[in-house]
Amino acid sequence: MAVRAVQSYTEGHWYTSSGGREAVASAVTGEIIAEIGSDGIDFGAMLRFARATGGPALRAMTFHERALMLKALAQAVMARKEELYELSYPSGATRSDSWIDIEGGAGTLFAYASKGRRELPNERLLIDGDTELLGRAGTFVGQHVYTSLQGVAVHINAFNFPIWGMLEKLGPTLLAGVPAVVKPAQSTGYIAEAAFRIMIESGVLPAGALQLVSGKTGDLFDHLTAQDVVAFTGSARTAMLLQNHPVIARESVRFTAERDSLNASILGPDATPDTPEFDLFVKEVAKEMTVKAGQKCTAIRRALVPANLINAAQEALSARLAKIKVGDPRDESVRMGALASRSQLLDVRSRITELAKVAPIVFGSPDDVPLTGEGLSGGAFMSPILLRTDTPWKATAIHEVEAFGPVSTLMPYDGIDDAIALANRGMGSLALSVVTHDPDVARDVILTGGAWHGRILFLDRDCAKESTGHGSPLPVLIHGGPGRAGGGEEMGGIRGVKHYMQRTALQGGPALLSKAVHQQLPGAPTAEGDRHPFRLTFGEIEPGYGIRTAARTVTLEDIEHFAHFTGDTFYAHMDEEAASKSPIFGGRVAHGYLILSFAAGLFVDPAPGPVLANYGLEGLRFVKPLKPGDSMKAVLTAKSKSLKTPEMGEVRWHVDVSNQDDELVATYDLLTMNAV
Amino acid sequence: MAVRAVQSYTEGHWYTSSGGREAVASAVTGEIIAEIGSDGIDFGAMLRFARATGGPALRAMTFHERALMLKALAQAVMARKEELYELSYPSGATRSDSWIDIEGGAGTLFAYASKGRRELPNERLLIDGDTELLGRAGTFVGQHVYTSLQGVAVHINAFNFPIWGMLEKLGPTLLAGVPAVVKPAQSTGYIAEAAFRIMIESGVLPAGALQLVSGKTGDLFDHLTAQDVVAFTGSARTAMLLQNHPVIARESVRFTAERDSLNASILGPDATPDTPEFDLFVKEVAKEMTVKAGQKCTAIRRALVPANLINAAQEALSARLAKIKVGDPRDESVRMGALASRSQLLDVRSRITELAKVAPIVFGSPDDVPLTGEGLSGGAFMSPILLRTDTPWKATAIHEVEAFGPVSTLMPYDGIDDAIALANRGMGSLALSVVTHDPDVARDVILTGGAWHGRILFLDRDCAKESTGHGSPLPVLIHGGPGRAGGGEEMGGIRGVKHYMQRTALQGGPALLSKAVHQQLPGAPTAEGDRHPFRLTFGEIEPGYGIRTAARTVTLEDIEHFAHFTGDTFYAHMDEEAASKSPIFGGRVAHGYLILSFAAGLFVDPAPGPVLANYGLEGLRFVKPLKPGDSMKAVLTAKSKSLKTPEMGEVRWHVDVSNQDDELVATYDLLTMNAV
Repeated sequence: MAVRAVQSYTEGHWYTSSGGREAVASAVTGEIIAEIGSDGIDFGAMLRFARATGGPALRAMTFHERALMLKALAQAVMARKEELYELSYPSGATRSDSWIDIEGGAGTLFAYASKGRRELPNERLLIDGDTELLGRAGTFVGQHVYTSLQGVAVHINAFNFPIWGMLEKLGPTLLAGVPAVVKPAQSTGYIAEAAFRIMIESGVLPAGALQLVSGKTGDLFDHLTAQDVVAFTGSARTAMLLQNHPVIARESVRFTAERDSLNASILGPDATPDTPEFDLFVKEVAKEMTVKAGQKCTAIRRALVPANLINAAQEALSARLAKIKVGDPRDESVRMGALASRSQLLDVRSRITELAKVAPIVFGSPDDVPLTGEGLSGGAFMSPILLRTDTPWKATAIHEVEAFGPVSTLMPYDGIDDAIALANRGMGSLALSVVTHDPDVARDVILTGGAWHGRILFLDRDCAKESTGHGSPLPVLIHGGPGRAGGGEEMGGIRGVKHYMQRTALQGGPALLSKAVHQQLPGAPTAEGDRHPFRLTFGEIEPGYGIRTAARTVTLEDIEHFAHFTGDTFYAHMDEEAASKSPIFGGRVAHGYLILSFAAGLFVDPAPGPVLANYGLEGLRFVKPLKPGDSMKAVLTAKSKSLKTPEMGEVRWHVDVSNQDDELVATYDLLTMNAV
Repeated sequence: MAVRAVQSYTEGHWYTSSGGREAVASAVTGEIIAEIGSDGIDFGAMLRFARATGGPALRAMTFHERALMLKALAQAVMARKEELYELSYPSGATRSDSWIDIEGGAGTLFAYASKGRRELPNERLLIDGDTELLGRAGTFVGQHVYTSLQGVAVHINAFNFPIWGMLEKLGPTLLAGVPAVVKPAQSTGYIAEAAFRIMIESGVLPAGALQLVSGKTGDLFDHLTAQDVVAFTGSARTAMLLQNHPVIARESVRFTAERDSLNASILGPDATPDTPEFDLFVKEVAKEMTVKAGQKCTAIRRALVPANLINAAQEALSARLAKIKVGDPRDESVRMGALASRSQLLDVRSRITELAKVAPIVFGSPDDVPLTGEGLSGGAFMSPILLRTDTPWKATAIHEVEAFGPVSTLMPYDGIDDAIALANRGMGSLALSVVTHDPDVARDVILTGGAWHGRILFLDRDCAKESTGHGSPLPVLIHGGPGRAGGGEEMGGIRGVKHYMQRTALQGGPALLSKAVHQQLPGAPTAEGDRHPFRLTFGEIEPGYGIRTAARTVTLEDIEHFAHFTGDTFYAHMDEEAASKSPIFGGRVAHGYLILSFAAGLFVDPAPGPVLANYGLEGLRFVKPLKPGDSMKAVLTAKSKSLKTPEMGEVRWHVDVSNQDDELVATYDLLTMNAV
């Protein structure tokens, strides 16, 4: 295999450093396969280029346009995935390990492409929460919005998943409209570079949207400002070093870290060896120990079982681990490949030595493992290692020292409170799993353990078939955790997009603010014209345009008729004596659904036109009862709109129904799909 | 006035340090009025006491119980407010200055008490966002929740608003169920201590919920862990020092800072001296310069006007400032009292000297001011100072140096883009105001300036009467800003509560998770019993309990009848030919409101009972059209409930309407108010 010079991508050009490159060896054979270095890069210029070029270009796009861009990037990666699988074997990854990295990475982009179009407006700013009335007369209101940060996202990624780790950060970042500088870990930087190159070659990214640092970050941090974000994944030691860089505090640079943590899995107190949960626990622990050779920041490092089951659990786990074939990751019978490098191997071995002082090894040997395949003597292979302690509160190292490899410690607990306390003793984790079929156990764990863990999987017989497992972060769920896990949060669907945006509270008159944010806010004046609003195409509708209907009297006959027609003979509509006793009604009142239906009768324009369908309703509140003889009228006003396809868009209309005294009777938002 | 020994409150006891106390002088007369010091406090023990005692007690309460506690605290402060007004004069504050501090502070607690009961459930955990389906069969789902942090909130407050500054942090903290250690600034610590004492004496707080450090924080930071939060308000210098404490990064302690920033106000390009906006701008700038003697982190430090109006603006501002009477804050004719201390005065003078090098003084004198009142020669008084530069891009100090007193710099801009760029040149602010009547200007400011400012006030003739002003943070809006402003965020209604909680992603089967979080999640099994769900009292209802109705056929006659009765003769219901051309309908379909009404007819139990009223509906989506001859049936299931008063509570029911082929037709949540 030829030695590859891993390139950087700066200011729109590929760059090969001429000196100071470090060699990268195959984790499988030990041969040198790549050289990586960033000497000579002007990091300040990179950041300025992103701010001046990539940022404005991305911010000029709407969320939907950025979402489509993500989809195209994901498609480009998928179209060339075999190149990436091939390139990944030397990192020690089996094909299933790389599936997580490559297809899991592309899947994350697809998920953001989809969420971006379904859950975000086709706009450049994002409305956050309800309008707050700040004065009694309604002439002064508050509205929170999110806008794109005007700086650069600096992504510092871990070695274990070079592609997924890059893409799970890029999805939310690009959707937020923020350019990124990606700095992969050096040992697998050649894989990240290949995936990055595919994205650049796809041609869908504006100039300056993405840059790559293959090698060290030099003086990059010296050039950070308040609009930049650093998102770090890796060891606690490096995270602390970076977080304490003086520029971070001085400029209030957003800093988020996702650090390896001592994640735990608890076999619930309700489980016995004859329950499905016992088997699920054993399978899950064994899987998390061996997938990607245990080099996962979410892997199970501590396996907690009821004290009386510890021998049974050890036996079952050992039997399962004994079946794991270790060796050449290209061999399809191999279940576990190599660690990422020899130095990683040495590091893991030394951690095991430390841990074994308090928790002896009960399965495997750190120095000895039978290998499947040829020419592997220079590789970074290791057997799965199971440790065990029977005094988990005394053996403090098991809660503090992480061996970032196929290593886990089995320990007993005494009651669910003890189990939760032991799990929390890790001082913050990315993922906790509890294998239980008892919802009371789950509630205890949430209330007393929730604050220590970023994600909690409750695994039982009901969900096992579809469970994605203890160790898998998902784009729709947050990834990150408190304390030792770094205190950060990534992904979580649209939550992750907001990490790259600034929330601002806007205050002002509703007329001005409505026009500024392209949404009709409460109290803003409405406009009426010659044309019925349902006769306007999607493009013609402006927030604020609407119609005031004529009034209609609601008679007792209407109410009785409606009751008999629909079958809704609730006493408040039909029984004067009973209704008069109600503190809410004080006499017979019209059905809420009668009010809704009559309101539609008042404002609907019947002929075929741009309104394709009424497809929903939000935030309906019945504010004041309508009594027989009262009249009702409606004001329907366009509130906001968002294009959904090239042919149609969603229009949100606000409807206020009032009585003859102009008192509000009902208020809601109506959703229609309109032709462009 | 007797010299007062300001006390701390640790581990449930009042504590007076015996040594190392520092003297505090009256800002009005210069005489020593208090001594403050924290020597001898065991800070580690304070934190442990809060974690072991206050935290569990607060977490055992529901959000509503905590909200009622906040209300009682606010009432206690209001009942004894005159003591606090009296005590505040020596700090240099006028009665209107103290109104912001005392009644604004209590008002913030009232706001959180109200939001807590209206917007949070009567529960101990908070559901965040929708349930995510993680598998096709629906047996594995994700749900985010917030739970209370299990540590301590350490609040380090500024000297300018000793009461409001304490209460705006305590409202969200206590509502979140987190105990606090409050450390007021030393110079006005005697005022904070008095307000704190009122809260303790109210007797509504559980032991360990609140502790007070009057004096320095000693080694407190050494004892922080991942579950603690530090919320700092004050100078950038101190913020950086604290943020860089090694424990912060090591333990991933949440750290939020609100630092003084160089806030700007822009007179819009649409304003001329004859517009109302010109006058509003002049009033606002003068007010922000002089309220609390300009010692507000949100005060306007930079006043930007169109270049051609700079002389007019200077003249109008100077005329207005000339009317401000400075002196004894007890004198009702006095508009501006003293700075908080002589050292503050010296600091402001030295900053003015620095600024005046690039922006000469055009109004006032830092060393000379006529005073109203007697015995003020030892006081920290100063005149309002207006500076001016005509070259704002060259005079960099005006964007970087803050004089924390009655000081502002007037400058010209050239077009709105230049104005926004100058505002952003402050590198992050708490508050920007733009005095404009032009919504296009507002949109420009939001899109190109939003990310640099935590709050933006758009002031115009329409909202001026009700405007709360540039400088006033409000409990319902976020307070904080990027960059120089510290990168933090406080308040913002319930947003601020979440800063003291941990978000966790839960995964599992919907049956187990529903029981664990006390909410029926999609896919969880439903239970039916002998009793109709509308016959159950609030207390008897369990999420998951519900009813499956009989089926009802919807005929063409029903549709036509409904159309004529309601007046809703939309073509999709009435015109087969037109409806058959619609890609969505493909023929005549039933009205959505007919489906809703018939569904109610199917599930409503008519006799008087615990269901007091149907008061709303959320998330209605019409999924599949119902055609003439189709039948429909509904499943109504209790989803969640929240007690609203001792007599009644809200029940949220989920309704799924399906057709004869069990295909979903409509889905929504129905809200009823139920008797307990």
